[in-house]
Amino acid sequence: MEKNSSNMIPLTENSPHKKEMVCIFGTGDFGRSLGYKMLQCGYSIVFGSRNAQTSSLIPKGTEVLSHREAAQKADIIIVAIQRQHYNFLTELTEVLHGKVLVDVSNNLKINQYPESNAEYLAQLVPGAKVVKAFNTVSAWALQSGTLDASRQVFVCGDDNKAKQMVMDIVRTLGLTPLDQGSLLAAREIENYPLQLFPMWKFPIYLAIGLSAFFFFYSLIRDVIYPYVHENKDLSFFIVISIPNRVCPIVALILLALVYLPGIIAAILQLHRGTKYSRFPDWLDKWMLCRKQLGLVALVFAFLHVLYTLVIPIRYYVRWRLNVYVISQIKDNRTDPFNNTNGWISDSYLALGILGFFLFVLLGITSLPSVSNSVNWREFRFVQSKLGYLTLILCTAHTLVYGGKRFLNPSMYRWYLPAAYMLSLIVPCIVLAIKFVLIFPCIDRPLTQIRQGWERNSKGSKQSYYNDSKSAV
Amino acid sequence: MEKNSSNMIPLTENSPHKKEMVCIFGTGDFGRSLGYKMLQCGYSIVFGSRNAQTSSLIPKGTEVLSHREAAQKADIIIVAIQRQHYNFLTELTEVLHGKVLVDVSNNLKINQYPESNAEYLAQLVPGAKVVKAFNTVSAWALQSGTLDASRQVFVCGDDNKAKQMVMDIVRTLGLTPLDQGSLLAAREIENYPLQLFPMWKFPIYLAIGLSAFFFFYSLIRDVIYPYVHENKDLSFFIVISIPNRVCPIVALILLALVYLPGIIAAILQLHRGTKYSRFPDWLDKWMLCRKQLGLVALVFAFLHVLYTLVIPIRYYVRWRLNVYVISQIKDNRTDPFNNTNGWISDSYLALGILGFFLFVLLGITSLPSVSNSVNWREFRFVQSKLGYLTLILCTAHTLVYGGKRFLNPSMYRWYLPAAYMLSLIVPCIVLAIKFVLIFPCIDRPLTQIRQGWERNSKGSKQSYYNDSKSAV
Amino acid sequence: MEKNSSNMIPLTENSPHKKEMVCIFGTGDFGRSLGYKMLQCGYSIVFGSRNAQTSSLIPKGTEVLSHREAAQKADIIIVAIQRQHYNFLTELTEVLHGKVLVDVSNNLKINQYPESNAEYLAQLVPGAKVVKAFNTVSAWALQSGTLDASRQVFVCGDDNKAKQMVMDIVRTLGLTPLDQGSLLAAREIENYPLQLFPMWKFPIYLAIGLSAFFFFYSLIRDVIYPYVHENKDLSFFIVISIPNRVCPIVALILLALVYLPGIIAAILQLHRGTKYSRFPDWLDKWMLCRKQLGLVALVFAFLHVLYTLVIPIRYYVRWRLNVYVISQIKDNRTDPFNNTNGWISDSYLALGILGFFLFVLLGITSLPSVSNSVNWREFRFVQSKLGYLTLILCTAHTLVYGGKRFLNPSMYRWYLPAAYMLSLIVPCIVLAIKFVLIFPCIDRPLTQIRQGWERNSKGSKQSYYNDSKSAV
Repeated sequence: MEKNSSNMIPLTENSPHKKEMVCIFGTGDFGRSLGYKMLQCGYSIVFGSRNAQTSSLIPKGTEVLSHREAAQKADIIIVAIQRQHYNFLTELTEVLHGKVLVDVSNNLKINQYPESNAEYLAQLVPGAKVVKAFNTVSAWALQSGTLDASRQVFVCGDDNKAKQMVMDIVRTLGLTPLDQGSLLAAREIENYPLQLFPMWKFPIYLAIGLSAFFFFYSLIRDVIYPYVHENKDLSFFIVISIPNRVCPIVALILLALVYLPGIIAAILQLHRGTKYSRFPDWLDKWMLCRKQLGLVALVFAFLHVLYTLVIPIRYYVRWRLNVYVISQIKDNRTDPFNNTNGWISDSYLALGILGFFLFVLLGITSLPSVSNSVNWREFRFVQSKLGYLTLILCTAHTLVYGGKRFLNPSMYRWYLPAAYMLSLIVPCIVLAIKFVLIFPCIDRPLTQIRQGWERNSKGSKQSYYNDSKSAV
Repeated sequence: MEKNSSNMIPLTENSPHKKEMVCIFGTGDFGRSLGYKMLQCGYSIVFGSRNAQTSSLIPKGTEVLSHREAAQKADIIIVAIQRQHYNFLTELTEVLHGKVLVDVSNNLKINQYPESNAEYLAQLVPGAKVVKAFNTVSAWALQSGTLDASRQVFVCGDDNKAKQMVMDIVRTLGLTPLDQGSLLAAREIENYPLQLFPMWKFPIYLAIGLSAFFFFYSLIRDVIYPYVHENKDLSFFIVISIPNRVCPIVALILLALVYLPGIIAAILQLHRGTKYSRFPDWLDKWMLCRKQLGLVALVFAFLHVLYTLVIPIRYYVRWRLNVYVISQIKDNRTDPFNNTNGWISDSYLALGILGFFLFVLLGITSLPSVSNSVNWREFRFVQSKLGYLTLILCTAHTLVYGGKRFLNPSMYRWYLPAAYMLSLIVPCIVLAIKFVLIFPCIDRPLTQIRQGWERNSKGSKQSYYNDSKSAV
Repeated sequence: MEKNSSNMIPLTENSPHKKEMVCIFGTGDFGRSLGYKMLQCGYSIVFGSRNAQTSSLIPKGTEVLSHREAAQKADIIIVAIQRQHYNFLTELTEVLHGKVLVDVSNNLKINQYPESNAEYLAQLVPGAKVVKAFNTVSAWALQSGTLDASRQVFVCGDDNKAKQMVMDIVRTLGLTPLDQGSLLAAREIENYPLQLFPMWKFPIYLAIGLSAFFFFYSLIRDVIYPYVHENKDLSFFIVISIPNRVCPIVALILLALVYLPGIIAAILQLHRGTKYSRFPDWLDKWMLCRKQLGLVALVFAFLHVLYTLVIPIRYYVRWRLNVYVISQIKDNRTDPFNNTNGWISDSYLALGILGFFLFVLLGITSLPSVSNSVNWREFRFVQSKLGYLTLILCTAHTLVYGGKRFLNPSMYRWYLPAAYMLSLIVPCIVLAIKFVLIFPCIDRPLTQIRQGWERNSKGSKQSYYNDSKSAV
């Protein structure tokens, strides 16, 4: 492309009869894989290497030259070399002048170097147009053609035309280019493949912490207390009974924590009288991981459902039911049907079923392909309206579970209330505040603020950049 | 782009060194958000406003000018103003001549105005090239970068080149442009973000109607009848027992209604001897919402499964089993194992399990990302073959559930048959007609008709446009 | 496009005021549907036909000419004719010279002809630029606009510019073009719509085979043996009891078979001392269908879960529990609670629940839209780490299920061990070898080999092409 001698001839993306020549520096695993793939897609490939002899591993139909010779043959040079070997490129400065240098490198650790590899490359070869790309693609995926993981190739660079050329190559290889802006973005792009579920860390650690706390809390109440007071060995409770107590508690608290930041944000906005002022950092971060919090909560709810459904198969439960029947026979009595118990038992189960069903629905709509096919209004309806309905149902499920026992003092063991009572604190607070917030006298000013109205518009001196995260 | 003075120089999508200038009319929430996002992606932005003074809310690096001055600086002008303020644009007609005007507006109600906002804009400024775009994107999503909902931007316009320019901007912002054709499509595009699951309305209302009917029907048979005749208070049945009767009934009927329109269409085509004649409107609409009908049916089937699986945990069920055991003891008898009951109970459960499993499979294949990765033949195989198999299994499940009681007159209460018997009517009709339709003597002419053959090809005077919806 | 007379004028994708003209040969169902759709998207359409008279079925606004006249009017000619009628095109060779011919045809059988239809067309009209496209799109989907199935259009051709022109049309129609390279790929593209889940065949046949074997094996042990020895009729076991024995066994074996090829590959690589040598064909194929194997295993696990959860509802189970209680009463005894049984029963259930949960998680991450949104490292973490954890949990679930009975000789019937014991063979082998492979002294050389190191790099004379599949 970019043939300097023939500027008057229209640039065509692919000239009709001969294929574009691309140079690859480095004959390592990734360089060869990329070269092989590009060859398949119709490009001519020339490799640049320290020892310019064709190895048997090099794809057929390509040649290996010295770096200098190879660079002269193409307008695009893919630098498939590790950062620590970039130095020799300074010797090629004049050959690389005006060429597009594609940095495909990755580091071993996040923020390993002060500047990104691509920016370092741009400093080394000032005359070249450096573009960052392909670092998220694995060599094996390129070879095998089975790109199970992401097809997305993040591209950034300061020169738009060079970026377009690289993005055309990406598209031709059957991948999806995503323009990330200027070369400054290279740092983030280089960190990306080293990340392991960054948005999930806080929700997962929080869930683990809550689970551990409630596990030991229930252990004390349900295993150690009976052992101390009645000398009963209920240690096998730690396998199903206690997990089935921990799971719904953690699920309910996490679900409430999904909606808590929105409520805090609303109070802050009402208090400040504007949406154009920055939220505290912790609130920003919390709001960005709400989806992950909700999905972790769904996991715990799912486990709770499975643990609950196997109850009648458990040996312990069957044994207890048998003992109960036998005791009735021995006492020659038949316990009459208690209508209230029938109502409570069925309501508790029905609320749980409906809550879980809505929870699953929320989970399905958060699948990328589903949320892509709804419009903004529909997405808001599902995630906000149905979300609160889920929270209400699940909270009611827990309240009814308590049933008559709810404030019964005999439920306290060593002054510890039942674990499910602790789990109700956060959701009840969230629902109470939300209930206040939907009162017209509070909802109206809040809606105005969110549409850009400001109580003291004179006083607002915050920069626009604060704005970017403040809306709920 | 489109520089009139330099037509001989090849147009490049992005000139290498300086970034394209875009003008935004209006400094409201959406205009600022869009400007901020475009600035991030490398565009130069100038705002046009009534009072041309830089507000603190305006993104840094942009300037605010009068509408006239701002418009002169760019070839693309994004009109981020509400429709009722469009009038002043008539004064700028000569400045806007030949420019691309992007209408991003939305209305508050569906079909609020006689013509779409974009068409109105095109009438006001006849010399400009009006393109409709960005109306489905939320300001907040642009700001926060977390485009959870749709990344799709619908674009339409009468000038193809202008449309391409706007689509390039859309792509650069990391969104997906979808060309919707000429400006006539603007009306539909403007209605789109106001819609709340339009395709789901009919299935959901139908499901609610059916549920209500069968709920009261079961209420009469299972709660009021025993109360009147035996003075038994079974009111707690409305929590689980009756919903678990309503859910499978509604699920089965809805599933049958998914396949009924295809059968009606086949009969109509056989009768008319051609596929090139339009179906009645109700049939067209019915056929277009089959996927949604099926998914609503799946929801009811899912609830039925959950309601069924909690049966053994219910207090009522446990009490009844206890009473049964105690009564055997008191009578000093042990009811022998009834082999037929064993068969019926297990068959009924197994058919339900397999039917539900296939139903879930159908649901998964209707996820956009899954249905995108299968070819047409595979999609047809799953949705048609597996779909009918699901219907057969679920119908059989209900038939076996009836079991020996099926036509037992003692099952009638106040001359009302059991609700599940009513639910079998539609599926049995569908399966019976489908069974007839796969007979070779009927299947052969039908296949021919669907491949374009016509019984009286002379007589076919229907316009081609009728064709567009008639194939099944 | 490609106007020979005006090479100095920049080529624009769509000229601003008049729409591009496209010619369609053939007025059959597909030709008309495509023409109608292109007309909607702004193209001018002219049909070429044997009898050049406008039929009522032809979309309004188009004309029907003779093939020769129609071809002269456009640069792109879509050949919507069946292959057996291609011959007449030889007469038009001089008219078609330099034009883009788009082959949209499909065959009725896989590999029906020695060469692909598109290559055949290129031989017939040597001067034309043949592009293969649109063959995977159904006429009905084009008409109705409801492209439920794939929006992907595979495009291939030897002329890059012609290919780009066709890909632009594909994009304008709202479809996604996928460049498949040169015209050689046409054969594969033509076979694609005839395929019915090709990657699923081996896993499904394997699952059916295993299911049949274990079904008859369990039939002998659980139905025929009691009938012969105790004259008990347990034939109704074939409905739920035996399927619920077969499903977990097949699921566990298939899950182990997902991880076996990776282990075999690792041993082969360690033995050969290089990754640059081709695996046997069976191993390649096995490795490519691991995802499908895993999903089939998930299906069986899902059925196992449903079959297990309905256990307490089964008439047989309720009857047996009743008999057990009554027998205790009659003998005037109450079986004491056995703590070991409590532990075993709960552990077995808990392991199964956790294993199933992780299994579902693996299934969800294999959804295309989910796996597209994770990076390579995350995908590897989920599919490898979580996958092995799932296998460990499911194997432990089966081991604990055996419990005390595990090596009890009374469990052998006709010298046949219990079926679940057979199912443990493969997973235990896989886990044992994997355990050896993660020892540092073995893991280190293996990692080096996978990064490209070779034990005898002099001796490696394999061609690069072998490389393309050998990495794990």
